[in-house]
Amino acid sequence: MRLSDIETPALVLDRVRMDRNIERLRTHLSSLGVALRPHVKTHKSVDVARRIGAPGTPITVSTLKEAEYFFEHGWTDMLYAVGIVPTKLPHIERLVRQGARITIVLDNAESATSADAYCRDHALQLPVLIEIDTDGHRSGVKPEDPALIDVAAALTGTEDRGAWLAGVMTHAGASYGCRSIAAIEAMAEQERAGAVRAAQRLREAGHAAPVVSVGSTPTAHFAKSLDGVTEVRAGVYVFFDLVMNGIEVCDTSDIALSVLCTVIGHQKEKGWLITDGGWMAMSRDRGTASQPVDQGYGLVCDVEGALLPYLVMVDANQEHGIIRHRTDPAATPMLPVGTLLRILPNHACATAAQHGAYNVVADGSQVDATWPRISGW
Amino acid sequence: MRLSDIETPALVLDRVRMDRNIERLRTHLSSLGVALRPHVKTHKSVDVARRIGAPGTPITVSTLKEAEYFFEHGWTDMLYAVGIVPTKLPHIERLVRQGARITIVLDNAESATSADAYCRDHALQLPVLIEIDTDGHRSGVKPEDPALIDVAAALTGTEDRGAWLAGVMTHAGASYGCRSIAAIEAMAEQERAGAVRAAQRLREAGHAAPVVSVGSTPTAHFAKSLDGVTEVRAGVYVFFDLVMNGIEVCDTSDIALSVLCTVIGHQKEKGWLITDGGWMAMSRDRGTASQPVDQGYGLVCDVEGALLPYLVMVDANQEHGIIRHRTDPAATPMLPVGTLLRILPNHACATAAQHGAYNVVADGSQVDATWPRISGW
Repeated sequence: MRLSDIETPALVLDRVRMDRNIERLRTHLSSLGVALRPHVKTHKSVDVARRIGAPGTPITVSTLKEAEYFFEHGWTDMLYAVGIVPTKLPHIERLVRQGARITIVLDNAESATSADAYCRDHALQLPVLIEIDTDGHRSGVKPEDPALIDVAAALTGTEDRGAWLAGVMTHAGASYGCRSIAAIEAMAEQERAGAVRAAQRLREAGHAAPVVSVGSTPTAHFAKSLDGVTEVRAGVYVFFDLVMNGIEVCDTSDIALSVLCTVIGHQKEKGWLITDGGWMAMSRDRGTASQPVDQGYGLVCDVEGALLPYLVMVDANQEHGIIRHRTDPAATPMLPVGTLLRILPNHACATAAQHGAYNVVADGSQVDATWPRISGW
Repeated sequence: MRLSDIETPALVLDRVRMDRNIERLRTHLSSLGVALRPHVKTHKSVDVARRIGAPGTPITVSTLKEAEYFFEHGWTDMLYAVGIVPTKLPHIERLVRQGARITIVLDNAESATSADAYCRDHALQLPVLIEIDTDGHRSGVKPEDPALIDVAAALTGTEDRGAWLAGVMTHAGASYGCRSIAAIEAMAEQERAGAVRAAQRLREAGHAAPVVSVGSTPTAHFAKSLDGVTEVRAGVYVFFDLVMNGIEVCDTSDIALSVLCTVIGHQKEKGWLITDGGWMAMSRDRGTASQPVDQGYGLVCDVEGALLPYLVMVDANQEHGIIRHRTDPAATPMLPVGTLLRILPNHACATAAQHGAYNVVADGSQVDATWPRISGW
C-alpha cells in the first residue's frame, strides 16, 4: 500500500526518523549513565514502545487507560505521573493485583494520608514519588519547602507493604518556553539540582527515597550532568514536532509525524490551497504561536515528506485546512485538486491524539504497517 | 450511578439543556418555514441525533466515517459537506449502493469534471451542491463569479443518473467572528442573499438547482428571513459553548457540555487549583482568546453544574488543568483535593472529540445513560 491509497486525512509516521530520534536520546543518556523511563503519553502505541524497549522495561503513563493497555501487552513497571486522588486507587489496585508495579505521584499531605490509609486498609503495596516543583510551571512541592517533610511523614509504609516513599519526581515543563540551548542547559541543571536537593532533604529526615526521576524532552537532551538522578522521563522526543524545532531541540528533518491531506480546492485571489485536513486532524494546538516563528497549524511537505519551502497551514476549520505562502500569497503554487500533502505538527502529543492509528512509512510514501493507538481514560 | 462514581476526566452532557437548545432552533426555523439538516459533526452520536429527529431525517456529515455510522443506524439522507476529491468517490459509491442518498459538495470545475466522469463510468447517481463563498472565510465560488456557470456545466447528469446539479450550499463561518447580534443578523442576510443569488444565476443558465442550503449556528438563530432557502445546517447549537456565549448566541446556562475533573493539588502561593482535566480532556481550542472576554480553557462549575463565579481554567498541560480566580489569585477558594468540578468548554465540537462517550445527566449529578460517540475518518 502507498500513501496515495489511503483516505485522507490520516496520520503518517516515518519509522526511520523515529528510530533515529530514539537512538539519539538513548545514546545521550547512556553517556550520562542514567536510565530512561520513556513517557508513552505521546504515542500510546505498543508498536512504538517496542522500538524503544522490550515489554517489561520501565515506562511512564499519563492515564490509567494507558496503564491497562501497556500492562496487557507485557509492560509491568509503570510510573503514573499525574497526582493521585483516592477515587483512582481501586483501579490501580486491580492492576497491581494482576501483577503490575505502579508507582504513584502526589504533592500534598491530604493525598499522602488518603493513599496511606487506602493501602493499609487494602493490604496494598504502592511506591510513591513526591512531585517536586523545580520550575514553577505546574504541580509540586518546592525543594526547600518545609511541607516536603510533612508529605513524606504521612506515608507510613515500607518497601514491603503499604504506601511507601520511593523518592521524588519532577518535570521541568518550563523548558518548552526556553529560547536558547544555553537556557535549556540551565533549566536541565535547575531540574536536576532541585530534585536531588529534595531527595537529600528526605534522606536527612530518615527516608531512603532511592528514586530521583526527572525529565522533559528539552532538558533530557541537553542535560550535561545527571548526578544524583536515577531515571529520566521524556515523551515527545520519539516523534519531535515544530515546538521542539522552534527551541532548537530538533531539526524539521527529524520530525517523524505528519498528517496526510488532499488539496480539495483553491481561493486563487487569496493564494489559498484548501485541504481536507483541518483542526480535527491536526488538533487545535498552536504551540508555535508564542515562539519567534509562528508555524500556524504546521509546515507543509509533499507526499514523500520533503518540505515545501514557504508553505504554511495558516488556518483551520474542523475538516478544512488553509495553506498559503508564508509572506507572499501570490507566490503560493496552485497545486491541483487531488494533490497529497503532509503537514508537520506543532505538537506531536496533541496531533497523534486526534487519530486512531499510525500509517508507518520507512522511506517516502510506501506504507509498511498500520499501528493502532489508544485514546481516552 | 452518580458523577462521583466516574473516573475523571470525563465528558458530561446535560440532557435538559440540550433538549432546550434543540427545541429553540426548531421553533425558530419552523417560524421561518425552513427545514433543518442538522450537522452531526459536533456530537457524532446517534443517541444525540435521535433527540433531534428520527433516523431517516436529513443530516449533514463532515466525514465519511460519520456517513457510515449514521447510515448503519438508519439515517439515509446525508450531505457530505467537505469538498469532494476523486479518491473518496469509491467509498461514497459503496454507501450509495447499500441505499444511502449522499449529496456531495465541490467548488471547482476540476472536481466537477472528475465527479461527473466517475459517476458516468460507474453508472452512479449523485446529487451535487456547488459551494458558494458568501463570507470569504474558506471555500466556495463567489455568487457573481463567472466560474460558477463553468462548474455547473461540468456536471452532465440528470436527477435520474450521473452527477447532477442539485443546487448550492454555503456556510457563513465568519459569523463566529461577529461582535453583536446586529452583526450576526447582517451576516445571516448576507449568507442567505449570496446563496439565493448563486442559485438564481444557475437557474438563469438553465439548471434546476432546487436546493439552497445555508447555515452556521449563529446565523441559523438570528436569520430574520430565509426566503429562497430550502434548508439550514447547524451543529454546535445542540450543546452550545463559550465561543457562542461570547458572541451572545447563548447564555452560559444553555451550555449542555462540560468536562468533569478532580482537584489533585494546589499551589497556594499562586492561588492555583490543579486538576486532572488538562488539554487532552478539554482540547487545545482557545476560541475565546480572540473574543472580548478570554475564558482560558473554560469556566468552572461545581459537580451539579452551577457556575462558580470568577473561576477560570487558565492553563493546561496534557493531563493537568490549572484553575484560579480570574482577577485575584489570592481569592481562589482552596477547594480540597478530591473536589469534583465541571468545566464549560470553549468549543463543543473540539472538546467532545477528545472523548469516547457522553455521561448523560438530566439534572444535577445523577448519570442516566452513557452514550458512545465516534471519532476518526
